[in-house]
Amino acid sequence: MKSITRSFAIFRAVALALCSLLLLGLRARAQTDPLPSWNDGPAKQAIIAFVRATTDKSSQKFVSPEERIATFDQDGTLWVEHPMYTQVVYCLERVKSLAEKKPELKNVEPFKTVLSGDREAIAKLSMQDLEKILAATLSGMTVEQFGVEVKGWLARAKHPRFKRPYTELVYQPMLEVMQYLRANGYKTYIVTGGGQDFVRVYSEHVYEIPPEQVVGTAGGIKYGYDKSGRPTLTKEPKLLLNDNNAGKPEGIHLMIGRRPYAAFGNSTGDRQMLEYTGAGDGARLMMLVLHDDANREYAYGPAQGLPDTKVGAFTQALYEEAKKRGWTVISMKNDWKRIFAFEE
Amino acid sequence: MKSITRSFAIFRAVALALCSLLLLGLRARAQTDPLPSWNDGPAKQAIIAFVRATTDKSSQKFVSPEERIATFDQDGTLWVEHPMYTQVVYCLERVKSLAEKKPELKNVEPFKTVLSGDREAIAKLSMQDLEKILAATLSGMTVEQFGVEVKGWLARAKHPRFKRPYTELVYQPMLEVMQYLRANGYKTYIVTGGGQDFVRVYSEHVYEIPPEQVVGTAGGIKYGYDKSGRPTLTKEPKLLLNDNNAGKPEGIHLMIGRRPYAAFGNSTGDRQMLEYTGAGDGARLMMLVLHDDANREYAYGPAQGLPDTKVGAFTQALYEEAKKRGWTVISMKNDWKRIFAFEE
Repeated sequence: MKSITRSFAIFRAVALALCSLLLLGLRARAQTDPLPSWNDGPAKQAIIAFVRATTDKSSQKFVSPEERIATFDQDGTLWVEHPMYTQVVYCLERVKSLAEKKPELKNVEPFKTVLSGDREAIAKLSMQDLEKILAATLSGMTVEQFGVEVKGWLARAKHPRFKRPYTELVYQPMLEVMQYLRANGYKTYIVTGGGQDFVRVYSEHVYEIPPEQVVGTAGGIKYGYDKSGRPTLTKEPKLLLNDNNAGKPEGIHLMIGRRPYAAFGNSTGDRQMLEYTGAGDGARLMMLVLHDDANREYAYGPAQGLPDTKVGAFTQALYEEAKKRGWTVISMKNDWKRIFAFEE
Repeated sequence: MKSITRSFAIFRAVALALCSLLLLGLRARAQTDPLPSWNDGPAKQAIIAFVRATTDKSSQKFVSPEERIATFDQDGTLWVEHPMYTQVVYCLERVKSLAEKKPELKNVEPFKTVLSGDREAIAKLSMQDLEKILAATLSGMTVEQFGVEVKGWLARAKHPRFKRPYTELVYQPMLEVMQYLRANGYKTYIVTGGGQDFVRVYSEHVYEIPPEQVVGTAGGIKYGYDKSGRPTLTKEPKLLLNDNNAGKPEGIHLMIGRRPYAAFGNSTGDRQMLEYTGAGDGARLMMLVLHDDANREYAYGPAQGLPDTKVGAFTQALYEEAKKRGWTVISMKNDWKRIFAFEE
């Protein structure tokens, strides 16, 4: 009897010691800064306060795990969008291979201008011209062929200023926010004006976001059979969902069916997504990335008194709305300790 | 020293005992039948063989967890679709409340016929008439109002034969397949010709499938503001995705962006989804539910030499294709020990 009692006492002691170690480990983990690339300030504090309020069971603002949805714009919010959207660069470069297959395009505008290589003329192309280029380069192939083409291009292409692959030009602080949210039970989604099929090629690898959590501008898809009778899905030059502006909350309803609790953007294209998110009950987090760091990245947009550009318009009106509605503006210059993972 | 050695020996013994218990528990769990409502036979064996092959790391057919996608048609595959699709019953019953708000409808066909209550005349309505009724009853309200209406109706409505809520008329064997797949790392999706917003109201509660994993026929959604300036999403009488036939693989690409490894259906509307699934590499599971049990549920469709009906056409051609391509046909009569959870 004595020996059994003693064994039990030892076992209990060992078990307690193990539990204590486990608790210490958990505490140590909780004390580790989840956002090491962020400077202390209102932006970082807003993120941490939001996560605490919505995941603490005793909080009145607790959100049940299945409801935890966070949406992120991509261009200018998760990665560099200057001097041109990466996908537009891709499409312009694809025109060359397209013209090899269809030589008649060489004499047709806007393809002629693109093939001329005249950068100034290309920069002056209208939105309508760009749409023609996008339609021509993003359709006519199976979804698998398209994936192979984009993957190959991303492995070769480099950003003109940073001389690195585009997929390395993601913002380290935003990767940390996504990881922090996921570690707290949030499902993270990309909600982009960019092409859904384009972003899905690298979303898992770059952002740890699976294809089914990428909502983007989507074209028609046509089911058919190839010569050997094998089923195929072919990309069509037809717009199904324009995932910009009002199209963002509409796309969120279509693809997710729930209102997000947190939404991140950087331009007028994200306005409605943030409004829709903010109109929900309880704690909601709305944030806008302001590009005000010409040294480490770029500075652009009227909110800084700078001329508007084709991409990423953070207008004065958006700035006013953010202030009025209590959205948090993230200053790249002041809030981010480092911008890219490759900085030491 | 001796005492420490002894403590360690006891600790090791206890730890080993705990591990053995754990292993025994795991083994016992593995030996529990994951599909208790299924009779032993080729259908049950096909499901178990598929799950083992795709989740065993040493198998050549192993599928990495993030790729594990299984898609399920709803009407006739997960729940009863006879004598009429549940959603059509809902729409027909909504015509009454619609006519209260818009009395002019009382003299306009097909609403006049629906309001007459003449069952024979209603049964004879054309597809075009039904589409008019669907468009009128499934649009014009916010997505939240629609959810409240459907929820309320489902709580009251009863099936004419079984005298139970429609949400109780789900097939227990299929619930088990979904649970078994999820327990093995599969993400289960509903891919239905029914309305996406309709099914999302109860999918989590009935099937443990969250709204973001429901792909269905979807109408347009319009972002706007109500009188107090609050953002709203309103359902429009415009078809965005017809999630039937070729629309199923197209919808799967739009909403999931991956080819399923397993797909379940019961009619010609599921043919392309099964073809698309089967055209992938490695192990794939394609199954069709055959309604051949008039006693416990229904028997219908030309595959049994019975006249075709408006819903759930399991045609002779589909039967031939299933045989040719090696899809498994599930006989409700022979493969299912019990059909509904409420049977004892």
